[in-house]
Amino acid sequence: MRHAFLRVCTPSHLVFPRVRVTSFISYRPSRLNHSSSRPNLPISLTPHSAPFPARTHTCGTLSTRDVGSRVVLTGWLLPERQGKLVSFFPLKDSSGTVQLVLSRSDPKPELQALKHVPVESSVLIQGRVLLRPPSARRSGTTGEIDVQVESFILLNPADPAMPFLPSNPYNLPNEELRLKYRHLDLRRSVLTENLAKRSKVAHSVRNFLYDEGFVEVETPILLRSSVEGAREFLVPTRTNNLASNSPAFYALQQSPQQPKQLLIAAGAVDRYFQIAKCFRDEDGRKDRQPEFTQIDLEMAYVSWGGENSKNDLKSSWPRDWRIGASQVRTVVESMIKRIWKEVENVELPHQFQVMTYREAMSRFGSDKPDTRFGLHITDITRELPAERQNTFHQSNEILECFVVSQSHSPEFVEASRNCERDPAAELIIVTEQNHSDWPLRSNILDSSSPAKGDIEFTNVNRKLKLKPGDTVWLAKRSKMSKGGSTALGRQRLQLLEYALAKGHITLPEKPHFLWITEFPLFTRSDDDKEVFAKGRWTSTHHPFTAPLWQDVAALYGGEVEAVRGQHYDLVLNGVEIGGGSVRVHDANMQNHIFTNILQLNEQEKAPFEQLLHALRCGAPPHGGIALGFDRLMSILCKTASIRDVIAFPKTSVGTDLLFKSPAGVAADVLKQYGIKPR
Amino acid sequence: MRHAFLRVCTPSHLVFPRVRVTSFISYRPSRLNHSSSRPNLPISLTPHSAPFPARTHTCGTLSTRDVGSRVVLTGWLLPERQGKLVSFFPLKDSSGTVQLVLSRSDPKPELQALKHVPVESSVLIQGRVLLRPPSARRSGTTGEIDVQVESFILLNPADPAMPFLPSNPYNLPNEELRLKYRHLDLRRSVLTENLAKRSKVAHSVRNFLYDEGFVEVETPILLRSSVEGAREFLVPTRTNNLASNSPAFYALQQSPQQPKQLLIAAGAVDRYFQIAKCFRDEDGRKDRQPEFTQIDLEMAYVSWGGENSKNDLKSSWPRDWRIGASQVRTVVESMIKRIWKEVENVELPHQFQVMTYREAMSRFGSDKPDTRFGLHITDITRELPAERQNTFHQSNEILECFVVSQSHSPEFVEASRNCERDPAAELIIVTEQNHSDWPLRSNILDSSSPAKGDIEFTNVNRKLKLKPGDTVWLAKRSKMSKGGSTALGRQRLQLLEYALAKGHITLPEKPHFLWITEFPLFTRSDDDKEVFAKGRWTSTHHPFTAPLWQDVAALYGGEVEAVRGQHYDLVLNGVEIGGGSVRVHDANMQNHIFTNILQLNEQEKAPFEQLLHALRCGAPPHGGIALGFDRLMSILCKTASIRDVIAFPKTSVGTDLLFKSPAGVAADVLKQYGIKPR
Repeated sequence: MRHAFLRVCTPSHLVFPRVRVTSFISYRPSRLNHSSSRPNLPISLTPHSAPFPARTHTCGTLSTRDVGSRVVLTGWLLPERQGKLVSFFPLKDSSGTVQLVLSRSDPKPELQALKHVPVESSVLIQGRVLLRPPSARRSGTTGEIDVQVESFILLNPADPAMPFLPSNPYNLPNEELRLKYRHLDLRRSVLTENLAKRSKVAHSVRNFLYDEGFVEVETPILLRSSVEGAREFLVPTRTNNLASNSPAFYALQQSPQQPKQLLIAAGAVDRYFQIAKCFRDEDGRKDRQPEFTQIDLEMAYVSWGGENSKNDLKSSWPRDWRIGASQVRTVVESMIKRIWKEVENVELPHQFQVMTYREAMSRFGSDKPDTRFGLHITDITRELPAERQNTFHQSNEILECFVVSQSHSPEFVEASRNCERDPAAELIIVTEQNHSDWPLRSNILDSSSPAKGDIEFTNVNRKLKLKPGDTVWLAKRSKMSKGGSTALGRQRLQLLEYALAKGHITLPEKPHFLWITEFPLFTRSDDDKEVFAKGRWTSTHHPFTAPLWQDVAALYGGEVEAVRGQHYDLVLNGVEIGGGSVRVHDANMQNHIFTNILQLNEQEKAPFEQLLHALRCGAPPHGGIALGFDRLMSILCKTASIRDVIAFPKTSVGTDLLFKSPAGVAADVLKQYGIKPR
Repeated sequence: MRHAFLRVCTPSHLVFPRVRVTSFISYRPSRLNHSSSRPNLPISLTPHSAPFPARTHTCGTLSTRDVGSRVVLTGWLLPERQGKLVSFFPLKDSSGTVQLVLSRSDPKPELQALKHVPVESSVLIQGRVLLRPPSARRSGTTGEIDVQVESFILLNPADPAMPFLPSNPYNLPNEELRLKYRHLDLRRSVLTENLAKRSKVAHSVRNFLYDEGFVEVETPILLRSSVEGAREFLVPTRTNNLASNSPAFYALQQSPQQPKQLLIAAGAVDRYFQIAKCFRDEDGRKDRQPEFTQIDLEMAYVSWGGENSKNDLKSSWPRDWRIGASQVRTVVESMIKRIWKEVENVELPHQFQVMTYREAMSRFGSDKPDTRFGLHITDITRELPAERQNTFHQSNEILECFVVSQSHSPEFVEASRNCERDPAAELIIVTEQNHSDWPLRSNILDSSSPAKGDIEFTNVNRKLKLKPGDTVWLAKRSKMSKGGSTALGRQRLQLLEYALAKGHITLPEKPHFLWITEFPLFTRSDDDKEVFAKGRWTSTHHPFTAPLWQDVAALYGGEVEAVRGQHYDLVLNGVEIGGGSVRVHDANMQNHIFTNILQLNEQEKAPFEQLLHALRCGAPPHGGIALGFDRLMSILCKTASIRDVIAFPKTSVGTDLLFKSPAGVAADVLKQYGIKPR
């Protein structure tokens, strides 16, 4: 049976003359052949290891231009569909799908064995391209043609008991099972397309930056441990730490921050870039990966002034970008515009909007505001009567609110009454009855001083222009913005989520890009970093960010909280996709930050020794940025998770279900590294 | 003094109007100012943190086209050279160097402070481009112009006590010190140029592959431990291995071999590439790095036949490339040709030479032969008298030699008498006296059977055509080639090294590319891998390489030593720069190799489980290659070590002298990972 198939179905010109196929197949122990259990099939399910010819075309690129040609195709065979006299088989490769036709009355009856080839098997087909009858023509490249099968070789049969069929979008198992069998899941067209798009964007980014004079430099992944804000991965070595006679470790780079600054300080490159792998051992945050990819830039001699600044610094300095590194802004905006043009065919505005951290927190309650919808926040402290104002002043707090108006924001009216509530935000529904004294329903206000009747809220009501049926969201917060969001900022997003889920609102198609600048340079650490900070100030972003030059006096004068940084975040549709800064290039200032502000001890400062030295050797002023490539791709591919734009992702707790890592290691292996389990 | 400088030397249009420079500098504690110890300088050595304008040009790109323009330049100030009436200062940035001129009788005497700026400081210069007097014009872009300084800002002073001056090529310290201060060493033009060239080649490679339909995919660096031939780096995690209640580890990828095969098996991409970071924890081999970079490719449905093969497999199959993956060969050759054309402006031959492993070992005594010079090796066993032949046959050995002839290879005559000798090779100098019976001087021959006088060596002498003064290098080896080189192969390279050092030979400028194919698929392990092999067969390259189809029978029949692989190495000037193969796509064959040939136990096979499953799911025939990017760049940049083409290299024992890694880690950090020092 096997001989007959190979002799008849493989046309003579496809068989290489010296291939003595039968002779070596007969050597193969039959117990290794999984076809042996299905002896009645008219086809051998043995993989083909003998020579075969090259394909002449890929499936998805065949078109009416090829009608009449004889072609050799390779790909995966998808389920048969029976017509009256013929059978149809889609043949798929990563370029697309073409339809094979096989007449059931073909003079070569052996061809009918194609029906017995398991779905998802790899096959080589030789056939002729036919124009479909007019009624059967469909749109798309291959929609007007078929390929009539003349012969085929089964290159590699698929196990008929595969865990799932990637070609069947209607019966997909849960993500966990698909991650376990990622090698099958990746055969789904949607993932194939995401990977192709990722490659295209990376290509576009690299070409753009190369043309802009950037030099791509690979920086070490095996670096030295240094506490920069997140937990690192360690790599044991077989080297002993001579001083302490204890094992020595590399640390995986969290980002190429120090190496790239050293490259610029050296003058090795004027403009550096790298699409860099970074590593953070963070506790399973939603949609984070222990390894992730950054588009990483750094530029020497970044300066002040707008795009057209030559010598005339005064007139060209943009009013909204009051910091240095205007070149970084220009390069990133141009790069993003190029990506959207090439990949989405969307023209973005000439310049992106810029907003200070202070304004973002005040108007949107977030340092990465989603500016695609309204519900702006208002500070109403000053509209309160003096006595109540005083209470807030004393605690250094303010009272904020946003209004969901029946007439101006009808899409959020239902959301406002039904969405999830932030514990620190209060909802008050304005009615005919409470229209003038609604604030008295507020626990925040009521407890701040005794009520005096409706007259006291005249100014508030004049400012908010409320009508019965409107809802007001209220919250107080400390006057100086802290952290990434306020209660009202979070509440605003809850409303959006509800309204989107219910279909009450459709967000604009066009992406909203936004720069946030002038962050506070230092913050009291959040829980995440507390393990390293131990009650000291921490850098909001990292310790290398330069202060606003207007705040240098405050930096040396000890007004730590008041110092703003020359930092910029790039926000897209309410998602932070990147951040960067002008760096400190003054060694003494950098040392002041390490020693007097962050209060690092000598051991903690040690990993920065070479940076301080480089700054002392004539390092130029410099600045840069890093963009999260996974997140950018996730937005471009419209996926729910970054896992869908990564070929082999890990789960949120860092497990790789396909490769089954992390895994145990034998004690004798650990011994070489001078370590053992506790 | 400071005020005066800032007021006078910074022209008014360069000062941003709102910069109250004096006010904030006065806040700066003077103890932080390292200029305070040198109070008599007519310039403040304080870094400039206030706004400054953008440069208008880079130094190296100014030319006669710019004569008369006013320019703003930034860069590093190099040592002053005094002319009669003027001083010259080279100003350097990463684009090149331009000469500044400063008249010693300039009406702005403050400008003279430039002389007191320490060498290698970062400065901003405003000036006017002048055409040099004819006698002072030099070649090169900036050789015909000067820039007359009109004002300057000292952006960042260099410490006058830097460990060395990178601009002084005549007084460089040893490599160890330069590695410690890599941030200074990288300011040397030669390293700057190497990094730029590396970026250019990577760019060229990516563009070429992208245009050829390759998709760049990032594969995980954090993978699972699997023994593939080299020692891995482990990465402890805070996850516990549930089964054993012991710590769990990732392993850093040694190469993306499994992930790339899975991508192809999945059909996620038809052609994959990645410029990939790989990691191996090898004992300090010469010129290896614990992390290195590969140009990594894999292609689905690779097949037999030459470039022009369509359906006519028979006529297009090249005689020298008797294995599959002809597409990989074509792509790599085209890519290499593109690189040499774009970077070196050299046209390489249409196709590269191909040689079997067997021929390479016989003629050159090496599996990466340097074919740029002669001294070919000859097997003279059959020319020996029958009795002596027999001795060799019995021990399954052969006798080989190469001749250094006074007439044909005069460049090696001195080398042959003076170079270092391989312990297993014998040198005999042919004289008038021993011309006919010289082999009797050989220990190898003499001990193999008793001498019978000169008549017995007639055939040998007829074959070798020796003359008095010629030298013969002799060695015996086992008949079946093993390993990477023979004694004569190593001796051949010793002669070359000597002749090159003495200047007796100049190798051709044109690179010699060569493919080596048909390696034995399995070998008895060398010492390097013995720790894993434990006396079993090991894969010569890796366990996924497919056998020659003609040798499949031998594979299943137990003739392990006779099985040749569909492997190919790419060799350039005697250096292996890459290797790849057609992969096994038959799950049963792969399992046979794991189980019956390599005799892996279940635990050792576990890391390959997903690959075996992927092969069972209709994986296409596939093949690929990985090229060592560091070594390729080292050859292109003509450097003695790959360290010179890596921005931040480690020493041969894996130490990073700049970042001071590896380093000790506190016990409480290790505790989180469930490990402790032994």
